[in-house]
Formats: sequence, C-alpha cells, structure tokens
Amino acid sequence: MTQVAVCGPSACTPQEAETARTVGRLLAERGAVVLCGGYGGVMAAAAAGAREAGGVAVGILSGRDAAGASPDLTVVIPTGMGEARNALIVRAADAVIVVGGSWGTLSELALAQRGGTPVVALGGWSVVDAAGDPVAGPVRAADPADAVRLALLTPEL
Amino acid sequence: MTQVAVCGPSACTPQEAETARTVGRLLAERGAVVLCGGYGGVMAAAAAGAREAGGVAVGILSGRDAAGASPDLTVVIPTGMGEARNALIVRAADAVIVVGGSWGTLSELALAQRGGTPVVALGGWSVVDAAGDPVAGPVRAADPADAVRLALLTPEL
Amino acid sequence: MTQVAVCGPSACTPQEAETARTVGRLLAERGAVVLCGGYGGVMAAAAAGAREAGGVAVGILSGRDAAGASPDLTVVIPTGMGEARNALIVRAADAVIVVGGSWGTLSELALAQRGGTPVVALGGWSVVDAAGDPVAGPVRAADPADAVRLALLTPEL
Amino acid sequence: MTQVAVCGPSACTPQEAETARTVGRLLAERGAVVLCGGYGGVMAAAAAGAREAGGVAVGILSGRDAAGASPDLTVVIPTGMGEARNALIVRAADAVIVVGGSWGTLSELALAQRGGTPVVALGGWSVVDAAGDPVAGPVRAADPADAVRLALLTPEL
Repeated sequence: MTQVAVCGPSACTPQEAETARTVGRLLAERGAVVLCGGYGGVMAAAAAGAREAGGVAVGILSGRDAAGASPDLTVVIPTGMGEARNALIVRAADAVIVVGGSWGTLSELALAQRGGTPVVALGGWSVVDAAGDPVAGPVRAADPADAVRLALLTPEL
Repeated sequence: MTQVAVCGPSACTPQEAETARTVGRLLAERGAVVLCGGYGGVMAAAAAGAREAGGVAVGILSGRDAAGASPDLTVVIPTGMGEARNALIVRAADAVIVVGGSWGTLSELALAQRGGTPVVALGGWSVVDAAGDPVAGPVRAADPADAVRLALLTPEL
Repeated sequence: MTQVAVCGPSACTPQEAETARTVGRLLAERGAVVLCGGYGGVMAAAAAGAREAGGVAVGILSGRDAAGASPDLTVVIPTGMGEARNALIVRAADAVIVVGGSWGTLSELALAQRGGTPVVALGGWSVVDAAGDPVAGPVRAADPADAVRLALLTPEL
Repeated sequence: MTQVAVCGPSACTPQEAETARTVGRLLAERGAVVLCGGYGGVMAAAAAGAREAGGVAVGILSGRDAAGASPDLTVVIPTGMGEARNALIVRAADAVIVVGGSWGTLSELALAQRGGTPVVALGGWSVVDAAGDPVAGPVRAADPADAVRLALLTPEL
C-alpha cells in the first residue's frame, strides 16, 4: 500500500482547505491511504476529501485522546506525545504533501527532508540559507493533481 | 469509532494464533478497528481475522519502515521508536485484548493498566504482588467471543 | 559512563523510599548516573540519595514541563510523551533497579526485559506464566548494596 | 535549574564549531545545563565547551545506544526514537540556541517555535512565507555572548 501524509496548518485559508480536500480526494481515488495530524484546517480537509472518495484517512494526534479529531477519519491514533507526533506522521508516509505554512507544518517538512521522505509543496513557507539563497529540497507542485502525481511517483521522485 | 488493540507475542502457539484470528474477525464484524503491533504471530493473526471480515487493521510498528509488516494490514504506521511504540498501541485503543504472554505483551498490559485503558486477558501471564497474591487488573475472558464482548462494553467494563 | 535507572511507584512505603535513597546514594558513590521518572516516592528518594553523594540524577518526566519534578534532580527531561517515557528511561539505562510494585513500574521492568536491559529487583511484583510458574527474568537482590553490586556488574550480569 | 539546548548540524564548519564551543562554555559558566543531540559537529562542540567550564552536558540521541556519542557528555540519553528525539530536545529546553543550518536543525527550530520555546539564532537558515517575506520567530544574536545572554533572559525573551 502507499501512504501519503498531507500536512498543513489548522488555521488555514479557505483556498488551502479546498486544495487539501482535492489532494485528499485524489489520493484516495488512486488507492493511497491519507495520513494527517487529525485536527482541523488542512488536516480535516484532507480527511474529508479522502472520505468523499471512499478512502482511508488516518489521523495521528498529538493529544492523549480523540478530542478535537476530525469526524472524517477512518482511524484515530491519539499518541499523547505532543508535537513529537509530527515525526511519526512523516516517518509513516511514503511521501508528504505540504499545503500552506506554519511552524508545525515546517517541522514536518524539515523532519521529512531529514529522514529522506520526499516532500511536495503546494505553496507555503520556504527556506533560505545564510547567504539568502533557497535551500533545495521540497519539489514545488503546480496544483493538487500535480502534487498527487509527484507524490505517487515516489520513491522515483 | 471504536478501536481495540490485540496484543500478544510474535512467537505464539498455533492455538494462540487461532484465538487472535477469531478475536480480530469478531471485532471487525462489530465495526471495531483492530490495532496491533503489526508483525507476526498474534499480531498477524488478529490482522488476518479483521481482513477476513472486511474490517480495518492498523499495525503500529517499532521499526523505521514497513519491513516485516503483516500483509493483512490496512494501514501500517512504522514509528521508528522501538519498544516505545507499545505505549502508542495501548494509548490509541479503547480497550486491549491480550492473547498469550511475553515481555513485550506484558509491557502493553501494564501500560494499559497504568493509563486507564481496560484490559481483557485470554490466557497469558499474570502478576502477583510481594505477598504472592494476584494483582487486580485485567479481566479474564472465557473465549474470544467473551473477550470481544467485554472489550466492546468499555468504558463500562 | 554507567547509567542505572531506579524505578518504583510514586506512592511507595517509607521502607521503599529508604531503600531507594540508599540505592541512589550507593550508585552515585560508585560514579554511576542515576536515571528515574523524576517525580515523587521511589523516584524522588533515588534522586535525593544521588544528591547526598554528590552525584548526578536525571529525571525523565512524562509531563510537558518540570511541574512536580523532584528538587534533587541535576537534570530534568520533560518529555511530554506521557507513559511512553517509561520506554526512554529503560532504554537509556545500562541496568534497571526496581524498588516496589505498580503498573507503571511493571511496564518499565517488562520493557527492560524486552529490550535486553538487565533488571535487578528489590521486592515488588512478580510475573507468573499461564501454568502459574514464575517467569525467569529479573535478578532478585537481597538489599540495596547487593542490588547496586549486581547492577554495576552488567552487562556480565 | 535552567536548561538550554544548542542545536546545529553534525557536518558544520570550523567556525560554527568554535561558536558552539563558546556558547557551551558560557552557558556552563552561568550554571545552565547544556542539552544537545549528542553526536558530532555543533553538538559535540557545545558539549566540549560545557565540559571545559565544569558544567553538565546532556546528549539526547536518536540511536538505541551510546554509539557515536560525544565523549564530553555528562549524561547520554539514547532514545531509540530516531528523529522524533528532536522534539524531546526542544521540549526539555527553556531556550534553544541554533548554530548553523541543516534540515534536522530546522526541525528543532520549528518544533521550538511551535511549542513556545524561545529560539536564538546565530546564523543558519531562515524562513520566508509564500510572499517571500521573512517569518518572525527566532531572535538573531550578534555573537555567542549575546546569544547566551538572550537565551538566559527567557522566558522574558
């Protein structure tokens, strides 16, 4: 099976939610399991998209129980580990699609890059080195379909 | 949704595997998600049982990738956390059914008791205090159907 | 350096606290770092003993911050991981000394056995298999000095 | 007690190592415990600096054992959790000082920002939002003394 994490802020724009929903739907249509952080915003939208397509969405939560979990999840994993759960989300994923920017989202992007999990970015924050030059890493996608295509190409990404 | 962990040794007896398979099947028939450690023995049997009934089985692995994971899992969560993942399995469960005995299994039983997750035991190891008296905790079930019934009664267990 | 975990209940008897304090002191006198769960009871007593001897005591806490931590710790590691931190305590130890019984303590004993870290027990709970026979594993010590001697023998234990 | 994490790449420049060593020394001179990832480069340099000043340096390792740990550590915590240990380093710190840039380092910076732990940066990577504007967060320090001063001001930072 292929598992793709969709990462992004809980406080997202309507456009980011729409993007995440389309990503979740397209992943499920292609048979991929959708992983996410399990709460609101981009996470809930990705789960809702997966559900629309009859797919499986898994929320790996920071909390000790299911409080605040998206109702569209198939499986809820409350880790009770706080933000250390961000490392679990990307570790369990064959690829990560990032939608939008936040410190939590950036930690997932960085952990994925550190661990060798391919990252596809739809907008969001970027990283520049001390000289002001962009740091190579995430692949930029043009739109949700492109992001899903790139994510499912992995590990040939 | 209800999520029940099935815990037991990877090196189990044929009887324990049969028991775990029945438990997994009955849980899935009642709509519960089956959680397990994702490898062989009791874990693989529970996943196979869940799959037989068209249910969802989730393996929360100690390893960094899916190597050695049961082929009957719907979702694989390689945590890369080693045995600390035992705490995740029981944290994510509404109840734990223990089949057979091993140190890893006992750690799951103890973590569940410590964290307040109900435990139903089908055989396996027991705990006695310094005076040699049994320590109260896990509920003993007569057979797989009884174990599943008791697990799904929770939190009223 | 050698690091030894002292594990036991926060709700312990005065005798267990005295035992843990002696264990902590003896470990520090022999130059070992004392690891513990960082809260009260056996944990605090072990830290106090280490401090008396001018040693280093490290508390690996379940909580997100230092609230409730023993004042005798040299280093406080609030993990925010809940009971999954029990796995960290035993993973970081070259040997584990168990004083007294509780579900949390038993989880540490079991995780240590599972992971191959030697365990020395001063009283506390025991484990029996399905036939009622004791399960081999922890080494029983006669008193604190014996426990420390056995723990520092490892890995030749 | 005050605990400050020094985060940076294992593959660092000689200048970054020198900076980290000075940071470690100044922290220890002011009585702070130095936390780090426990391996080479910036981590080992920070530990060496702390040791020079007679302080306490704690390495929180990704590996299952002490292999590869800096010899200048007072305490070694092998977590066996892989990169999820990055979350533990910043969780246990009252402040984080970042020296240099890498994906692992960035994950620590982002996890600290996410969790509310103040971050002081000495060089290294920066983050820009989708519009190309810098994302507010880490405080920039002029030199090691300035970084230590800022870190020890926390939580008033």
